[in-house]
Amino acid sequence: MQALLNQSNGLLKKTASIGCQRGLASMSEAIKERIRCPSMLKKVTNNPEDVTKHLFDDMRMGWSGFTGVGYPKVVPEMMAQHVEKNNLKGKFGIHLVIGASAGAAVHNRLAKLDMLKFQAPFQNAKDVKTCINTGKTNFADTHLSKFPVDLLYGYYALDKKVDPEFPLDVGVLEASAITEDGLVIPTASVGTSNIIGQVSKKIIIEINTAEPSFEGMHDIETENPPNCGPLMIKSVGDRIGTKGMKIDPSRIVAIVESTTPDKTPNNTKPDAKSQAIANHIVDFFNQEVKAGRMPKSLYPLQSGIGNVANAVVSGLVDSPYENVTVFTEVLQDCFLDFFDKGKLDHASATSIRLSPDGFKRFYANKDKYAPRITLRSQHISNSPELIRRLGVIAMNTPVEFDIYGHVNSTCVMGTRMINGIGGSGDFLRNAKYSIIHGPACRKSKNDKFGITTVVPMVTHCDHPEHDLDVLVTDEGLADIRGLAPRQRVDRIIDNCAHPVYRPILHEYYDLAYDECLKRKAAHEPQLLDKAFKMTLNLQKNGTMRIDNWN
Amino acid sequence: MQALLNQSNGLLKKTASIGCQRGLASMSEAIKERIRCPSMLKKVTNNPEDVTKHLFDDMRMGWSGFTGVGYPKVVPEMMAQHVEKNNLKGKFGIHLVIGASAGAAVHNRLAKLDMLKFQAPFQNAKDVKTCINTGKTNFADTHLSKFPVDLLYGYYALDKKVDPEFPLDVGVLEASAITEDGLVIPTASVGTSNIIGQVSKKIIIEINTAEPSFEGMHDIETENPPNCGPLMIKSVGDRIGTKGMKIDPSRIVAIVESTTPDKTPNNTKPDAKSQAIANHIVDFFNQEVKAGRMPKSLYPLQSGIGNVANAVVSGLVDSPYENVTVFTEVLQDCFLDFFDKGKLDHASATSIRLSPDGFKRFYANKDKYAPRITLRSQHISNSPELIRRLGVIAMNTPVEFDIYGHVNSTCVMGTRMINGIGGSGDFLRNAKYSIIHGPACRKSKNDKFGITTVVPMVTHCDHPEHDLDVLVTDEGLADIRGLAPRQRVDRIIDNCAHPVYRPILHEYYDLAYDECLKRKAAHEPQLLDKAFKMTLNLQKNGTMRIDNWN
Repeated sequence: MQALLNQSNGLLKKTASIGCQRGLASMSEAIKERIRCPSMLKKVTNNPEDVTKHLFDDMRMGWSGFTGVGYPKVVPEMMAQHVEKNNLKGKFGIHLVIGASAGAAVHNRLAKLDMLKFQAPFQNAKDVKTCINTGKTNFADTHLSKFPVDLLYGYYALDKKVDPEFPLDVGVLEASAITEDGLVIPTASVGTSNIIGQVSKKIIIEINTAEPSFEGMHDIETENPPNCGPLMIKSVGDRIGTKGMKIDPSRIVAIVESTTPDKTPNNTKPDAKSQAIANHIVDFFNQEVKAGRMPKSLYPLQSGIGNVANAVVSGLVDSPYENVTVFTEVLQDCFLDFFDKGKLDHASATSIRLSPDGFKRFYANKDKYAPRITLRSQHISNSPELIRRLGVIAMNTPVEFDIYGHVNSTCVMGTRMINGIGGSGDFLRNAKYSIIHGPACRKSKNDKFGITTVVPMVTHCDHPEHDLDVLVTDEGLADIRGLAPRQRVDRIIDNCAHPVYRPILHEYYDLAYDECLKRKAAHEPQLLDKAFKMTLNLQKNGTMRIDNWN
Repeated sequence: MQALLNQSNGLLKKTASIGCQRGLASMSEAIKERIRCPSMLKKVTNNPEDVTKHLFDDMRMGWSGFTGVGYPKVVPEMMAQHVEKNNLKGKFGIHLVIGASAGAAVHNRLAKLDMLKFQAPFQNAKDVKTCINTGKTNFADTHLSKFPVDLLYGYYALDKKVDPEFPLDVGVLEASAITEDGLVIPTASVGTSNIIGQVSKKIIIEINTAEPSFEGMHDIETENPPNCGPLMIKSVGDRIGTKGMKIDPSRIVAIVESTTPDKTPNNTKPDAKSQAIANHIVDFFNQEVKAGRMPKSLYPLQSGIGNVANAVVSGLVDSPYENVTVFTEVLQDCFLDFFDKGKLDHASATSIRLSPDGFKRFYANKDKYAPRITLRSQHISNSPELIRRLGVIAMNTPVEFDIYGHVNSTCVMGTRMINGIGGSGDFLRNAKYSIIHGPACRKSKNDKFGITTVVPMVTHCDHPEHDLDVLVTDEGLADIRGLAPRQRVDRIIDNCAHPVYRPILHEYYDLAYDECLKRKAAHEPQLLDKAFKMTLNLQKNGTMRIDNWN
């Protein structure tokens, strides 16, 4: 392993651009080492035509990849070049599903060539977002636990043109290795790969030799839902499957070598607001432990991606909690610190997405970290069954939330898609503690406090009021457990909203309550002609601070 | 059993009013037969003061009961009379939780005396609704699978005044019997009773001798979440627990006899619209079976309460499907027909709520029906774990849904609570087939087609777009599986909306798309200043049919 690691680190430095080495007729030593199944070695090719001959306009394609790691790098580039070379822009569109998201550069490349007719279930790339929000790409945003299962059920192949046996025409899976008995070993993420491997008519595998092998870190389920029996996972590190994916070899039409590592962004330091949010959350945990509702090892943690998530976990690293576990989608750098402090026992996820420095650190100490990490398929990592059973603490970031606790996680001003719901619904609906956190306000073009996170009514609802326990901003924390809507209002406004918005929101509630009471309809007071006035004011006048509710 | 049955049928006829027989010093033969544990017999009383001495203003109370069956009848009446007799109206309020809902008459009685300060997690009684919608009662509407668990976690006891060990001051549980070893056997529903039995400081049991015993029909889990291990249920009839509830005898402070059966409404015949909806759904099942996505025995059925649900199930009774199973919350009369036809193998639920005629039929053939029915706690009957595993077909009724597939299940015009979300979120989020169904439009005061079920944007969101597969009205069925928001619009409008609303909704979408496209924000087009115009027009002018979108 150490030899491989050194070699790969070398490659990591040398490799500058995407792509396989064309014209290189012979196989690299690296790929020979990774493919231990002789019959599979015969499928290795470096000729783009061996790949592009399987691709066609209007095809349904599935990629490995989750939150920008473990995605294919070679085939997408071959496909893009194929479109450019043959002047196919506008004539070569695909229906693309990815576990969650590919690296932004690779995904953007296709978007810029107008190749994305359809995308599911998530994305996180600027040009893809533009295609979605300008009507070019149909984006089916959906729960990450549900997507692979629906794909398996044929729900993405209802179009009569599609072969019902194979909802996907071509699956492209990045892999670390293929074992002696043909098991395909994923790289830094599992995502939907195991299902894509089952439902694709043809499969192309990219063996990534630029990264050390992740062999041994995955736990791949061997049964499909429904009626697959209970998931026999009682603690976060339990295993129920095999170390790789079983894929019908007759459907593997090509194997290519990929010499490009995952491109992930660098970490940024938590800002003051993130730190304040993290402090409120750690205080809350302290209170819960003191009250006996949480053990000293906490409950398994789930945490979204980003600065606040990093700050919260960093806050916990410096807290008195020990023997902590993690049951989440994505592992970020902060969890390495947690391991290093000896406070984190085990982490379960579907992807490990570190910064470039984080990956270096991880590879350099892989023997220490890898046995404490289990990478699962996303319908297992995000399974409602497991999230409820384990009593997970879920922490996610909203676009906005309202005075009753409804949350918008996806669409700015109700209509512009950012990334997608991801796993937030899986976790918030089923967690023992459902927490959302974000800054109380953000600046707009012409107002330092122009955009409030706390609004009268969310402009798009992803998480209904029934799903939330705790709402946090840098201003404070609102614990709404066990409360009726009208009881939540003061707590949410006074603890979470920025002070400049508190009187505005209180006035709205008072007006709404009076008006609804007249109609004997005041369970959850709203004024349907004014509920979005603050957002409309932002569109027109650049700030959500309004002068009055008239 | 037959003797008991005859005796009970007799009681059923004789008993006219609620209440225990006061002044009757000796115990009835019936109750002696039901309480087989000698130490428990000592706790039987007919003296209201033995009960009311445990009750006090501002108390937290938990009742058995789910959808109007298995709820206490004697203690609530004693409590109401206590308030009347002592002029305590306005001075004796309680925080009440009920599995789901009590019989309307009993619940309304407390509402009329202004006794309900707080109510969770559901209700279905006219005067209770009025209290909720006029600000008198705080109603914490929540998922029925989550409620008992949150109660157990202490989330309804965060108030510092509450003893954290006992979130409830008094639990009142209706029971069929108490066994030799002290197991308390529920009646027609389990609901939250097992948890209420654990978290109540004092417990009062009502032995219902007006109904035959339900002993043997229940499966009561023996472990509490979290970390309770997988629920080892692989088919709807599997059992994981015991036949009754284990309750610490030292906390049982009184046992009373109840001689009043559950008061349930009569069935009404399905109207033409319900029949049309049912036909669309049966056609859809036929299509799915033909496509190989559904077996001939279907998947376990969940169905809400009401006419449409009855019509759908009746439609299935006359269909070619056999060996069908049911995994639902509530069993209605239609399932008896299903059993009688020999087509239904087993039904799992948390309550059996039949019409008065249905109960007669059930009791008369109990030996036939009972072994094929399993009654579970509501966090098991509605468990996301089991709903996903079994691949349930979920069918529920909306207040309204929008052109993108968001669903309002609870609040008319966004603010007036009807009953609560109930189990609809548990089932729709996790089912293999998530179906909602309702009439395309309803009449308003001044327009035969005044209220449309299909709207531009729901005024309250209980089920986000990500949760739905199929939307049905009497007009038709929209299959939105695997589609992006913009792809769903035509299908929902053209298949589900009433013809008079189709041009209005199409025009809205076109305007919204154009406007959002200008801002590059057209993933899910909406006009925030017009989205609720149809509902506002209903409030002002009595119809949702508007002349224009200006």
